[in-house]
Amino acid sequence: MEMQYKERSYGHMENGGGARRTRTDLMVRFLALGLTLAAAVVLGLNKQTTTVNVTIAPTLPPVSLPVTAKWLHMSAMVYFVIVNAIVCSYTTVSLILTLVTKNGNKNVSLMIAILDLVMVALLFSAIGATGAVGLIGYKGNSHVQWGKVCDVFDKFCHRVAVSMVLSFLGSMAYVLLAVLATFNAYTKF
Amino acid sequence: MEMQYKERSYGHMENGGGARRTRTDLMVRFLALGLTLAAAVVLGLNKQTTTVNVTIAPTLPPVSLPVTAKWLHMSAMVYFVIVNAIVCSYTTVSLILTLVTKNGNKNVSLMIAILDLVMVALLFSAIGATGAVGLIGYKGNSHVQWGKVCDVFDKFCHRVAVSMVLSFLGSMAYVLLAVLATFNAYTKF
Repeated sequence: MEMQYKERSYGHMENGGGARRTRTDLMVRFLALGLTLAAAVVLGLNKQTTTVNVTIAPTLPPVSLPVTAKWLHMSAMVYFVIVNAIVCSYTTVSLILTLVTKNGNKNVSLMIAILDLVMVALLFSAIGATGAVGLIGYKGNSHVQWGKVCDVFDKFCHRVAVSMVLSFLGSMAYVLLAVLATFNAYTKF
Repeated sequence: MEMQYKERSYGHMENGGGARRTRTDLMVRFLALGLTLAAAVVLGLNKQTTTVNVTIAPTLPPVSLPVTAKWLHMSAMVYFVIVNAIVCSYTTVSLILTLVTKNGNKNVSLMIAILDLVMVALLFSAIGATGAVGLIGYKGNSHVQWGKVCDVFDKFCHRVAVSMVLSFLGSMAYVLLAVLATFNAYTKF
């Protein structure tokens, strides 16, 4: 009887709700791929050079010096770009696996579901890190005397914000994938 | 036949592997409760007052001034304490629900599985945020002229690190809960 039940379940998966679920999974996964790729590229190519006035001696007029803001200058942003690149690469592999197996292989589906969860954790830690540093860059912190820098590097900060929104949407796509996987697994009780 | 299968599945859950799974879930949940509570308390009670030498005028000797480091001075740390308090409260509610229903109610189990996922996202974003700010506090960042502060507030920084380790272990407990829920749901195919 159990065998018959299993066969019926898989049959249902392939032809009815399962196929629809696979399509939804693929669409959300494509979306996550595009969003995390865009987030990594936007921040990875982010660079702004501007001039600041520096006073060398009180008797001399201030000197204009060029300064450059790069994502490589801040550990949180390096972590953000690496995480989004990892998630983007994993999404490509998971897309291929989903397309090849069409969710018919239980072990592959389970592995993907667990790795999706790891991606959620990685993405949220990267967003938290960049968000915290970005907020100090935008507002500064007088308690530790960390001055704001977004008034000088306005375009750079704007692109960081865009990149964070893209990555947040990508992470929400992964949350949706994990919720869908949990929901689908539970409705098979 | 489907009805018979369902009855058999639930019977198996209550008496055999299911009961063992519930015990594991409860143990990991208790662990997560203790860890997130400890993380919130350690950082929430964290405060260090020390003296720094300030030069008011070049002709006068430096003056010693008291300065205090508090978690309330840094947005990332406020977010960290709030998130750990939320997770701690939710864990208590989920523990009561798990004990009351003993995983017999499918809708409650599904709701808990989805909310567990939200806790993973919240915890990792908070750890990322505090980690990024903590790293700058420890090493400083010459590119944006944010000086390190952990040489002055050594005890404060040490307790931030302890709190982060506790919260990270709590988040790993939540990852384990989510992995277990996914694994259990998939093995019921």
